[in-house]
Amino acid sequence: MIRDEARALDAHDPLAPLRDRFALPAGVIYLDGNSLGPLPRATVPAMTDMVTQAWGDRLIRSWNEGWIDAPVRLGGKIAPLIGAAADEVIVGDSTSANLFKALVAALRVDPGRRVVLSEAGNFPTDLHVAEGAVACVPGASLRVAPRGDIAAAIDGDVAVLLLTHVHYKTADRFDMAAMTAAAHRAGALVLWDLSHSVGAVAVDLSGARADLAVGCTYKYVNGGPGAPAFLYVATRWQDRLASPLSGWMGHAEPFAFADAYAPAPGMKRWLAGTPPMLAMAALEAGLDLWATVDRDAVWAKSAALWRIMAAAGDAAGLDCVTPADPAARGSHISFRHPHAHAIAQALIERGVIGDFRDPDILRLGLTPLYLSHDDVWRAGAILGEIMASGDWRAPRFAARLAVT
Amino acid sequence: MIRDEARALDAHDPLAPLRDRFALPAGVIYLDGNSLGPLPRATVPAMTDMVTQAWGDRLIRSWNEGWIDAPVRLGGKIAPLIGAAADEVIVGDSTSANLFKALVAALRVDPGRRVVLSEAGNFPTDLHVAEGAVACVPGASLRVAPRGDIAAAIDGDVAVLLLTHVHYKTADRFDMAAMTAAAHRAGALVLWDLSHSVGAVAVDLSGARADLAVGCTYKYVNGGPGAPAFLYVATRWQDRLASPLSGWMGHAEPFAFADAYAPAPGMKRWLAGTPPMLAMAALEAGLDLWATVDRDAVWAKSAALWRIMAAAGDAAGLDCVTPADPAARGSHISFRHPHAHAIAQALIERGVIGDFRDPDILRLGLTPLYLSHDDVWRAGAILGEIMASGDWRAPRFAARLAVT
Repeated sequence: MIRDEARALDAHDPLAPLRDRFALPAGVIYLDGNSLGPLPRATVPAMTDMVTQAWGDRLIRSWNEGWIDAPVRLGGKIAPLIGAAADEVIVGDSTSANLFKALVAALRVDPGRRVVLSEAGNFPTDLHVAEGAVACVPGASLRVAPRGDIAAAIDGDVAVLLLTHVHYKTADRFDMAAMTAAAHRAGALVLWDLSHSVGAVAVDLSGARADLAVGCTYKYVNGGPGAPAFLYVATRWQDRLASPLSGWMGHAEPFAFADAYAPAPGMKRWLAGTPPMLAMAALEAGLDLWATVDRDAVWAKSAALWRIMAAAGDAAGLDCVTPADPAARGSHISFRHPHAHAIAQALIERGVIGDFRDPDILRLGLTPLYLSHDDVWRAGAILGEIMASGDWRAPRFAARLAVT
Repeated sequence: MIRDEARALDAHDPLAPLRDRFALPAGVIYLDGNSLGPLPRATVPAMTDMVTQAWGDRLIRSWNEGWIDAPVRLGGKIAPLIGAAADEVIVGDSTSANLFKALVAALRVDPGRRVVLSEAGNFPTDLHVAEGAVACVPGASLRVAPRGDIAAAIDGDVAVLLLTHVHYKTADRFDMAAMTAAAHRAGALVLWDLSHSVGAVAVDLSGARADLAVGCTYKYVNGGPGAPAFLYVATRWQDRLASPLSGWMGHAEPFAFADAYAPAPGMKRWLAGTPPMLAMAALEAGLDLWATVDRDAVWAKSAALWRIMAAAGDAAGLDCVTPADPAARGSHISFRHPHAHAIAQALIERGVIGDFRDPDILRLGLTPLYLSHDDVWRAGAILGEIMASGDWRAPRFAARLAVT
């Protein structure tokens, strides 16, 4: 693609005005919104208001002025992004903690089913937390299968199929409806990790009849570093599942201060501790921005951005590991190269921030809310220059960073 | 006590200058710092810097510029407040989540011991989470005993004694060294909940040879609403215990992206998900303020403030349920009255913010960093007026709030 084509797409891009709603650093093309989304400008006054007014001035009174309902309210704002009803989603804790709660709960549905089935090479925390969860349920175990063998591995022992919808390295996307149906035919529940999906691709949990889902809000939702995660429980399961992490905020009457635990109705039972209100304020600003966005335009632009970068990678002779079919992938693109870490560092030096995933993946996030087609074209051109010149071989790019 | 005596104490109060380091609302005497600590002025620019610079400008690069070490760094700043070594404390998740992790881990030490022993009427989340934790360990159960019967209830079945150091209602304080020694004599571990202790009274976990502790940072530490909690694991236990909530941030090499979980050495293994950096920034500002404070002066002033309010309550004919001996209590004071909720509301209308704890406790926090002796004297005088006039009987105080 030539640059004029990218510019022409920008000229007719209905999402172009959204760029000004983000505070991006000058001189940077940010291709890492799939890891940490940038700062929405509206988040700055929202945080100031939370800190100085809600906390500083109203103090404890704020719990009765909107705080206590924040986990449910923010869940309702995530719901449209994942095809859920407003009362099927709650915000709180980390993705890891929510995975733990949902897995243990799912393992307790049917004592005859003791297996969590997942994908080899799934995002590490999914497998690590699954190890922790099965150790909390007598007889339970974790079974992992290569991606292509998963459907065949769903048997009568499987309590819950744990899949990440969009793979963090390759961006491979599962067919949510098909995999959910396969699990249901075998009598298993499905828990979808939507961390690389929410805000990246269209998600329809209700349409797929998914049982459970978790996800991260600091990537495409732009909720801030380490923002609270979400948990989805389909209505039909809400009375039948309970949280092993039974903290006071999930109690039916938290301020009755009873000794015995009684789970709250609906999604509130999945809360544990006191909601992290500063983080919730930032996340709510990110969600309120999403509420104004034409999501179909986002998914379409994501595909266009992807084609631009795929062409640049192809021209540079890079090995793309992400499927070309938009329905079979997320919105990032990954190239495999034995020196991917050095290439990522060379890109950063030239103002293109992407990231590296061990051992050999260069990962570039293509996020339509704040990237223009021309941004991606220029990033692709810089990638081409680095590969053609061999600049990435410079010794200064050899040092490994702690966080990559 | 007459007001001049309170004013004389203020004139010689070495902590008096600290008042200006907090942004307190005008016209309010804030006696609820034991529930939600007020806003330190330094937190405002710290949050702005975190939001606009660390997140907004440095973006993903911030993980290599101080973020990834925040849980350990902040743990090290909490350590002096609880008598721990810097590498025995880590910050993350909620108190509830940390209770869960520590209880399950403690139950796994000795398969011959299956009981969590705690106090009837302990803070609800301690008992609720203990219910959840014992359900995750085969054969385990929760035993609760009235306060006076706990020592006698520690037998050879007890794996872990779970006590809240300072009681959230009465402010009764356990003798940490004595109860820990009693548990150890019976072969049990002790897990201390320090939520109403840290920043309120002197705590010496090392001196008491405590095994485990958790606590909250949004009360006396002034870390912000729903601030991240902390977990303490004595050095001698750090290699022998592991977290059931085994998320990627607790992995020995989180960025190696290995399928199999391997716990990190030291305290990092207790991390689960990505650290909540916005909340961590606020908490760090609160901790940095504490680092400048003469803690012995705080404990001494706390006792003086308590005597002022106790005298006022006595004069008003209120039933004080908090022990008079400073060594036997925390820094709040509680009065029992069948209409405590209405009295708390009447106080709030007069600018004195305390709180109510079901069913009949009026609870007033006496926090030396930002309260003067005269503040507490005036609050006591207002309490006396409300009780003498019967103003609390007005119908407008009858409505119950959602959060009390």
